[in-house]
Amino acid sequence: MAEPTEGLPRALVLTVSDGVAAGEREDLGGPAVAALLTGIVGAIDRLTVPDEPERIAAAIRDALAAGTRLIVSTGGTGLGPRDRTPEAIRPLLEMEIPGFGEVMRAAGRAVTPLADLSRSFAGAIGSTLVIALPGSPRGAAESLTALRPLIPHALDLLAGRTREHPRREAAGGPPR
Amino acid sequence: MAEPTEGLPRALVLTVSDGVAAGEREDLGGPAVAALLTGIVGAIDRLTVPDEPERIAAAIRDALAAGTRLIVSTGGTGLGPRDRTPEAIRPLLEMEIPGFGEVMRAAGRAVTPLADLSRSFAGAIGSTLVIALPGSPRGAAESLTALRPLIPHALDLLAGRTREHPRREAAGGPPR
Amino acid sequence: MAEPTEGLPRALVLTVSDGVAAGEREDLGGPAVAALLTGIVGAIDRLTVPDEPERIAAAIRDALAAGTRLIVSTGGTGLGPRDRTPEAIRPLLEMEIPGFGEVMRAAGRAVTPLADLSRSFAGAIGSTLVIALPGSPRGAAESLTALRPLIPHALDLLAGRTREHPRREAAGGPPR
Repeated sequence: MAEPTEGLPRALVLTVSDGVAAGEREDLGGPAVAALLTGIVGAIDRLTVPDEPERIAAAIRDALAAGTRLIVSTGGTGLGPRDRTPEAIRPLLEMEIPGFGEVMRAAGRAVTPLADLSRSFAGAIGSTLVIALPGSPRGAAESLTALRPLIPHALDLLAGRTREHPRREAAGGPPR
Repeated sequence: MAEPTEGLPRALVLTVSDGVAAGEREDLGGPAVAALLTGIVGAIDRLTVPDEPERIAAAIRDALAAGTRLIVSTGGTGLGPRDRTPEAIRPLLEMEIPGFGEVMRAAGRAVTPLADLSRSFAGAIGSTLVIALPGSPRGAAESLTALRPLIPHALDLLAGRTREHPRREAAGGPPR
Repeated sequence: MAEPTEGLPRALVLTVSDGVAAGEREDLGGPAVAALLTGIVGAIDRLTVPDEPERIAAAIRDALAAGTRLIVSTGGTGLGPRDRTPEAIRPLLEMEIPGFGEVMRAAGRAVTPLADLSRSFAGAIGSTLVIALPGSPRGAAESLTALRPLIPHALDLLAGRTREHPRREAAGGPPR
């Protein structure tokens, strides 16, 4: 029997949190993120690491080696001394997608001015899309909701499926 | 007889597209961009290059050597494997103007969420303004329409004409 | 008797302007910035330097050595040949806070399209928050007004006071 997720890309939801990794806090962000990915990805791996840049980077590298096409982290994008997710992931990116960071904050700004404290961002490594969300479940969900309609298009484009035909331009398809 | 464009800056419209360079596709973006520049620039040069970073960079360098004050590219700002315009141009910039990228996507976002897939940006090399637009004619036109009122001011400021006098501040002139 | 500013962080307002430093122009931006900081910071130092990157950087370093927790500059974020505040300050930052630059321009954009000419930005050096505002008093005030509600939160987070407790997440506190 065909799985309903057959053909959909494999994803990793990476919870970055000292407290969750130590078993001192419940992971609320990871499940919220995974729930929002349902329907646009296939198998979803889940992993938790502490706010250690090397641990974060290793998780990304392992996921790439496993053929993961979408990596979504939650946590470590704030301003605290232990918030090092951008510093851990950004050096691995081959391109940054500035509009993703901008739209996550623009969406959050409509709800709370605190959204601008988040250093959320996204980019690509090869054909893998990497999105770094805030750690609060609400912030993560708001940010991912803003990006969700873009993810299938981004994955197609990164894979070289540019949907290039005359009508695309006439219809105002994805900018390139 | 004086040309109506006398004194206006020289511009280059650079179409970045494998398909157009190979003669396999019609260039729709370049003419759309050139039409929108009419009235704010003088002579407009037109050039097409494939999505090759070295060809893009060489076109920029040649335009600078020719005294071009405004370079507007269209194409290669997407997420595809051949979309390397940001990687080709950004290393040449002496300053990036982040608000230009932000306002292009903010304007596009009002029309389609796909605008956030564009890695459009702008910056300066000496007193030359460089703007990298999306490749779709509609996306390029929307982005350039958002920037158009800013271009004459930006060119003046880059050339050191700061319009600095007491009334400017009282009137809330260009921020510096 | 306790000062009303007791416990509030020490701030520096840094006016960056050749004209003000030479005594040829009145400093209108510095006082406007200082007035807007009243109530959220304690002692406010004031300093003026010309648009010389080394002078700007030295002022930042001196303020850090003096225990300043908030540094707000005004001037030198435009596109002119002498506007080098981003180039002077950015290399000193340990993290950039992209949402601060975005919200400053988004707020300005509602008033004037010229806001997008500003290369305003913010970031952190250790637990010190650094904000670079435009030079025009109106632009500086508009930008700082947009950021003002975020500054106490940002200073708390930078100092490691993450206000982390179960309700914070439920209440949608600052993203991290």
